[in-house]
Amino acid sequence: MGNTKHNIKLIGLNGNLPLAEKTAEVLGFPLIKTSIKHFSDGEINININETVRGDNVYVIQSIQDPVNENLMELLIIIDALRRASAHKINVVVPYMAYARADRKTKAREPITAKLVANMIEEAGADRVIALDLHASQIQGFFDIPVDHLRAVSILAKYFLDEGVKDNVVIVSPDHSGTNMARKFAEFFDAPIAIVDQRGSHYDNAVHDIIGDVTGATAIIVDDIIDTGVRLSYSTKSLLNAGAKHVYAAATHALLSKNATDLLNTEPIEQIVVTDSIIHEDGRYPNNMVRLSVDHLLAAAIQHIYENKSLHDIFDDQQNLKL
Amino acid sequence: MGNTKHNIKLIGLNGNLPLAEKTAEVLGFPLIKTSIKHFSDGEINININETVRGDNVYVIQSIQDPVNENLMELLIIIDALRRASAHKINVVVPYMAYARADRKTKAREPITAKLVANMIEEAGADRVIALDLHASQIQGFFDIPVDHLRAVSILAKYFLDEGVKDNVVIVSPDHSGTNMARKFAEFFDAPIAIVDQRGSHYDNAVHDIIGDVTGATAIIVDDIIDTGVRLSYSTKSLLNAGAKHVYAAATHALLSKNATDLLNTEPIEQIVVTDSIIHEDGRYPNNMVRLSVDHLLAAAIQHIYENKSLHDIFDDQQNLKL
Amino acid sequence: MGNTKHNIKLIGLNGNLPLAEKTAEVLGFPLIKTSIKHFSDGEINININETVRGDNVYVIQSIQDPVNENLMELLIIIDALRRASAHKINVVVPYMAYARADRKTKAREPITAKLVANMIEEAGADRVIALDLHASQIQGFFDIPVDHLRAVSILAKYFLDEGVKDNVVIVSPDHSGTNMARKFAEFFDAPIAIVDQRGSHYDNAVHDIIGDVTGATAIIVDDIIDTGVRLSYSTKSLLNAGAKHVYAAATHALLSKNATDLLNTEPIEQIVVTDSIIHEDGRYPNNMVRLSVDHLLAAAIQHIYENKSLHDIFDDQQNLKL
Amino acid sequence: MGNTKHNIKLIGLNGNLPLAEKTAEVLGFPLIKTSIKHFSDGEINININETVRGDNVYVIQSIQDPVNENLMELLIIIDALRRASAHKINVVVPYMAYARADRKTKAREPITAKLVANMIEEAGADRVIALDLHASQIQGFFDIPVDHLRAVSILAKYFLDEGVKDNVVIVSPDHSGTNMARKFAEFFDAPIAIVDQRGSHYDNAVHDIIGDVTGATAIIVDDIIDTGVRLSYSTKSLLNAGAKHVYAAATHALLSKNATDLLNTEPIEQIVVTDSIIHEDGRYPNNMVRLSVDHLLAAAIQHIYENKSLHDIFDDQQNLKL
Amino acid sequence: MGNTKHNIKLIGLNGNLPLAEKTAEVLGFPLIKTSIKHFSDGEINININETVRGDNVYVIQSIQDPVNENLMELLIIIDALRRASAHKINVVVPYMAYARADRKTKAREPITAKLVANMIEEAGADRVIALDLHASQIQGFFDIPVDHLRAVSILAKYFLDEGVKDNVVIVSPDHSGTNMARKFAEFFDAPIAIVDQRGSHYDNAVHDIIGDVTGATAIIVDDIIDTGVRLSYSTKSLLNAGAKHVYAAATHALLSKNATDLLNTEPIEQIVVTDSIIHEDGRYPNNMVRLSVDHLLAAAIQHIYENKSLHDIFDDQQNLKL
Amino acid sequence: MGNTKHNIKLIGLNGNLPLAEKTAEVLGFPLIKTSIKHFSDGEINININETVRGDNVYVIQSIQDPVNENLMELLIIIDALRRASAHKINVVVPYMAYARADRKTKAREPITAKLVANMIEEAGADRVIALDLHASQIQGFFDIPVDHLRAVSILAKYFLDEGVKDNVVIVSPDHSGTNMARKFAEFFDAPIAIVDQRGSHYDNAVHDIIGDVTGATAIIVDDIIDTGVRLSYSTKSLLNAGAKHVYAAATHALLSKNATDLLNTEPIEQIVVTDSIIHEDGRYPNNMVRLSVDHLLAAAIQHIYENKSLHDIFDDQQNLKL
Repeated sequence: MGNTKHNIKLIGLNGNLPLAEKTAEVLGFPLIKTSIKHFSDGEINININETVRGDNVYVIQSIQDPVNENLMELLIIIDALRRASAHKINVVVPYMAYARADRKTKAREPITAKLVANMIEEAGADRVIALDLHASQIQGFFDIPVDHLRAVSILAKYFLDEGVKDNVVIVSPDHSGTNMARKFAEFFDAPIAIVDQRGSHYDNAVHDIIGDVTGATAIIVDDIIDTGVRLSYSTKSLLNAGAKHVYAAATHALLSKNATDLLNTEPIEQIVVTDSIIHEDGRYPNNMVRLSVDHLLAAAIQHIYENKSLHDIFDDQQNLKL
Repeated sequence: MGNTKHNIKLIGLNGNLPLAEKTAEVLGFPLIKTSIKHFSDGEINININETVRGDNVYVIQSIQDPVNENLMELLIIIDALRRASAHKINVVVPYMAYARADRKTKAREPITAKLVANMIEEAGADRVIALDLHASQIQGFFDIPVDHLRAVSILAKYFLDEGVKDNVVIVSPDHSGTNMARKFAEFFDAPIAIVDQRGSHYDNAVHDIIGDVTGATAIIVDDIIDTGVRLSYSTKSLLNAGAKHVYAAATHALLSKNATDLLNTEPIEQIVVTDSIIHEDGRYPNNMVRLSVDHLLAAAIQHIYENKSLHDIFDDQQNLKL
Repeated sequence: MGNTKHNIKLIGLNGNLPLAEKTAEVLGFPLIKTSIKHFSDGEINININETVRGDNVYVIQSIQDPVNENLMELLIIIDALRRASAHKINVVVPYMAYARADRKTKAREPITAKLVANMIEEAGADRVIALDLHASQIQGFFDIPVDHLRAVSILAKYFLDEGVKDNVVIVSPDHSGTNMARKFAEFFDAPIAIVDQRGSHYDNAVHDIIGDVTGATAIIVDDIIDTGVRLSYSTKSLLNAGAKHVYAAATHALLSKNATDLLNTEPIEQIVVTDSIIHEDGRYPNNMVRLSVDHLLAAAIQHIYENKSLHDIFDDQQNLKL
Repeated sequence: MGNTKHNIKLIGLNGNLPLAEKTAEVLGFPLIKTSIKHFSDGEINININETVRGDNVYVIQSIQDPVNENLMELLIIIDALRRASAHKINVVVPYMAYARADRKTKAREPITAKLVANMIEEAGADRVIALDLHASQIQGFFDIPVDHLRAVSILAKYFLDEGVKDNVVIVSPDHSGTNMARKFAEFFDAPIAIVDQRGSHYDNAVHDIIGDVTGATAIIVDDIIDTGVRLSYSTKSLLNAGAKHVYAAATHALLSKNATDLLNTEPIEQIVVTDSIIHEDGRYPNNMVRLSVDHLLAAAIQHIYENKSLHDIFDDQQNLKL
Repeated sequence: MGNTKHNIKLIGLNGNLPLAEKTAEVLGFPLIKTSIKHFSDGEINININETVRGDNVYVIQSIQDPVNENLMELLIIIDALRRASAHKINVVVPYMAYARADRKTKAREPITAKLVANMIEEAGADRVIALDLHASQIQGFFDIPVDHLRAVSILAKYFLDEGVKDNVVIVSPDHSGTNMARKFAEFFDAPIAIVDQRGSHYDNAVHDIIGDVTGATAIIVDDIIDTGVRLSYSTKSLLNAGAKHVYAAATHALLSKNATDLLNTEPIEQIVVTDSIIHEDGRYPNNMVRLSVDHLLAAAIQHIYENKSLHDIFDDQQNLKL
Repeated sequence: MGNTKHNIKLIGLNGNLPLAEKTAEVLGFPLIKTSIKHFSDGEINININETVRGDNVYVIQSIQDPVNENLMELLIIIDALRRASAHKINVVVPYMAYARADRKTKAREPITAKLVANMIEEAGADRVIALDLHASQIQGFFDIPVDHLRAVSILAKYFLDEGVKDNVVIVSPDHSGTNMARKFAEFFDAPIAIVDQRGSHYDNAVHDIIGDVTGATAIIVDDIIDTGVRLSYSTKSLLNAGAKHVYAAATHALLSKNATDLLNTEPIEQIVVTDSIIHEDGRYPNNMVRLSVDHLLAAAIQHIYENKSLHDIFDDQQNLKL
């Protein structure tokens, strides 16, 4: 008699169920059964079909479009798990919507990313496992532990494996992404450049390239590809500035609005993204390569469950070991 | 110099903007301007266009379908108001979704109504003004003041004004509504009856009428008309049991699924509801009468703002005075 | 060396010490020693006589009359346990006073049930194990897990074992108990009836029976028998309406005021209750049968301690297996 | 139209209603009507009979015997006031029970004074006005403002007015009261002495007087007179040690057990106390003088309501000015 | 009689008392008297010498070196103000230490900026008024309102007034400051450039200039000048890259280590900073120009106190109006 | 696979690193590596060099001079541990600064001891292990468990071992220390005396001895030796009053200001203290004896980690067994 063993249980919600399933497969045990219904009046009803009493539960949910539905699914299951006496509720969020609403840019704006963080914490989560949050400071929006995973090595490794490594310039498509570009550039020992947008509206904005890209292979690096507009004008500007080839890499492929059509018209060699977001309608641009983060998530879950440092996930070359 | 005067400001969100506008009109001053955008990636962005520093703000939002969108709109504006130094944030919720998820009926269910209450409170609301909550106990889900308004007198008064008052039996369509039926019956000095459903599934359930309705004018009273199924079989059972006329009254006209088609086929004289929920697509059944709660909400807001008791809203006959 | 084993410890307080002792006996280990003194100035002093460091503690306390004394005993021992480094503090509450104060029925009333829930939670309880709370919504008054036990199968099984099962009608003595009556009726595959009180004061109220009880064996089902007045007039009304036999069943036998005298004068065959409340003065009516919930509580404690689902407590016929 | 004026409202609970009424009389406006019922099942029900919306409410309640009843009365009305939208809830506590349970003296003891402080704060109080708390540190148990009033000047002034001021020695009846004795002695420019109890049980303890009291008029000063035992043996020891006259002064006259009988047998000239505690049974010892703190409480309430410093209550000689 | 007027009170702590005094002078009323002692054992003792009951208090404290002393001063006075019944506690923080510790850059790091935010909030502050926080996301570390002031227009206006406006390039000394550089550049309608540091250690790092600065007047813009090393190598790199003149602008002049000596050796025309930080030892470099933010702080305080939008502080050209 | 074993990890901070190291040595395993830097701008940076995921961590930090630096070190490492997923964070505080600021002695004072307690708790500590807190009530400032250790037996045993036990009088140097003196006296079966200071300033205060010390060996007992002034005048007064020898004992040797010089001039036989505070500058008076509490802390840590009662640390004579 004793209650000190805490089993591991995996739950996949509707945001990105295929990724949850692939992650479970890597880990070697199935997602537990849950019944999630979206009623005709718009309400979500969740029931967990097996006991989680005393268990360490990992809920995998991408807060992608429809973001409010997926966020509520997550909050509701946290509430259900807490009331069902789960031991620890770990929330795995490959993509966290609203992360860009992380500060007030004008008067009377909300900071919705903090609101979302508060809600997840108040609902009863014990830990968040996130992937490439838009700003690192969002870790501090939580008072519970946040394990912040980075897909950068997965993306960079792809280019290196493909032989895209000579005469490379890493390009940040705006002023806030310079840090990520710098980090990405370390894998290639490459210089960086910046697309400098002047004026606040896309239409009549001027986009200068700061830095020399003449004759270079430019890799535009961003955390999110949303409407594709930024990637589109960045490509144009780079080619105007003398770049020979343009590639793109990003963690989160939002592809909202008519991003796919727009990107299909741009002469980008390859757009490399992860499967943190899934589009069931298959709206991916022709030249898009999708790398799975399933092994990364699985490794993180296993290490956390076994109380091992997440540092051991990567080898000295920052490649995933698992 | 001094900062002790707190102006009143009204905000209407997208859940039921027409009701917000009518309420503002009754109060005699306009809704303040807000810009609420639903982006192509599913995120909501809110900006309040005028200062609310030091103001007493009343946000009117029906958490109706799409419930998660409308709930997030509400939470986000509360966050924005708090960060914009509003003095008091009063949340007026004509319809509160998830109110029926107010207890665990089986193992490992969430209590989503409590989750929603916690979220509203944590986001920063100072008071909730609600209308006919599914269960009175939901008041206790909040630790902030809840002013719980009742539409029952508005509904009952309509029938009395229309001359529907003789030989009346008030009918509760299920076991949990008996209390509301009893209260409604007081207006008519009428007996009550109950539709007793046995078996848990609609299809093969038996619906007996408990109580005598022979030759009577039955008024089915409920708080919510959702899919209309319950109202439909209640009508059938009442007519089978000998009722002469069947009317229906409810505060919230959810009308989900194919409720309208279903109800249009039932021989109900009139279905009387309020405008706590609006359907922009005009899906109301032919025999539905919609009474506005604008004067009720306006009176509540004004009394609260002026620190007067809400009891003064009604006269001795429980009619709205305003 | 290691601190990961959490022993189980049982504590019985003064509310219903005999039930705590019987429950401990079923579990097979004794209550730990505590010294609880009520001083001459009215204060309560508690000292726990053995270490609870790192233990899973289950405190059994019925918040019965004197309710404020018993509630304070409970809160004080929770404080003591928390400061004494108990691992988990589980509160077993066979009867929770103030549960009927679960909503505001008029202006400026407290919601004392929520106050009590907040106090238990703030004092440091980790879980509540309750029995037939007056309203299921009270589960949502807590944000900690609530394991809500039901005595209904114990009560129903008694009647079935006694052969009281033919021509039975289950009667709810008021409008809010209809749900419980319906659930009770399922055990007998029986119809239900309702005592419909019109007018707000007992004395001049009219009590109609809704539903047919002619020649039937009526079982009045309630959660609480308080002053016995409701049970008394329900019995009278049922016999007037043609019922042949009247039985009664309830979980909590409050028996306040002159309930015993009153009930002794009524022609009720048997009043079946549980021992969730104990009356040391033996004030039970002559025809009262008291069934113990000791096995139910013991099974719940053991399953929770061993992280097993509480569903396994009952067999397919909803009988306690333990 | 505007809601910025906050009226003052006074509420008296059952702990010490006469003191509440006298305080109201000094302030010049009546206690508002409340209905407080103690039901036959032990529950307390409270209803406030007039609106308190937006008001500054002062609740006067002595948490005296029966302490748990009176504490619950206080907590319940705080809950009711909060839900009734009172602007500020000020709790006036002439006597706070459990204040002596302010630390753990052995393993596994509660710190009930902190529990009570937490409960008052969690229930929703905005400020506490207390009188001579057993330990000054209890102020720090609260995170809300505590206005800590002292009756010491009222007590000292009485002796001075009575001419008891020559050859006086102020005596602390135990080791923890030395500070209070020292402060009291300043009014008389007098030396102090201490009753030094050795051994932990009263019966066989030795009580030496530390300090010289030969031929002196000894005034024993304490915050609480509980069972009277300490005052009794202190008197005996002082007379043995050569004191000529013995007086006593204390803020709180608990008089539990057979304190009155015990004190009536001791040759104490006068026992001067306040009316922070009332005994409806009139159990006061013959030589007890009761001074009212009504003017002190009234002055505090008025100054707080008008945002004036409490220092202005006293003149330069530390006498109450009001 | 009434307590609805809330006077304004200003308190200056030791972090930057001269700025507090200048701000008070602009506002036209003096700092209230406080006694702040740093004892020989290292403890800080604070006493506020006049009543603040019901007042709106503005505490001006720069959390500059010695940062932990100054932070504790701030937290202690917040505690004192709360316990002294201040109405609102507004914390004005011209410089907030630890703001750069706003995220985990490696495993097992604290996020001290969030810790500081939590501490200020928990201590009892109602609002924070900050100046050029290192990252805008720090606003979201608070759940209380943050009014985030910007000194950028004051700095830019100085250059424009001095005639430094032709052939200007705005330079960000690292990757994270690009946004601020872009905003600063808008005042000059100028292009930007970036100092691109490769390698993680200063000593052997390479600093390329991205963007064209040949023959230009470079203005290096940063939020903080700490050790001056970054400014030093940026100057060198800019001159190497062909810049004709180098200026620098920053809000916070930390000047730690041997910054002054280092900067005195660099051929920078002018280093323009604000007085958000004061160095009583006058360690400013020869070519440093210090602009006061006193009018900015005063305007913010006055507008907040009078519930006016902070937007009105600036005219259309973003110049301070006051 | 499982995560239920929680290793023990020890961390020593800069407050009293030698004591942390000695304690670790007694326990038999080393302090884990942490890097704590105090930057030139006054900020503290902490990095924990090995994983603590799932571990039971004990942080040993004396909050001694420089108290604000040491307090911040403690808070920052708590934040880091929490974010690094430590299982339990136990804070061992041999000396807690600000403990004397435990109440308001005049208007508008902070209660800094409560502020410090709140900060430690909010930062994320799970338990505090303290040594001879200035007032026992400070335990109640925390809602987390506090294990309050006492050095009194270590100090008393030293005197007994040295043969200082005949004709002993234990002396409290002020009115608040009488309790501690009484407890200390029990070890010697000795009488007590008190130094009675009249008047509030040291310089012109009169210090009478209450109690008889003629010809006795006086041992002055205090919790803290701060500036040494109190010990100095107490010695003088005792010798004046006829004491033959004067010894002193205290837990915490603050020795601020010129305490060492002052005490070196006083004819005190021995001053016995613990090493709860360390002075790296070796400023101890000549006659000071320092006893280590390393075995006491080690025993407490081990018992807590193994979930054993702390009572077992001492034998029947209250001597440390370990």
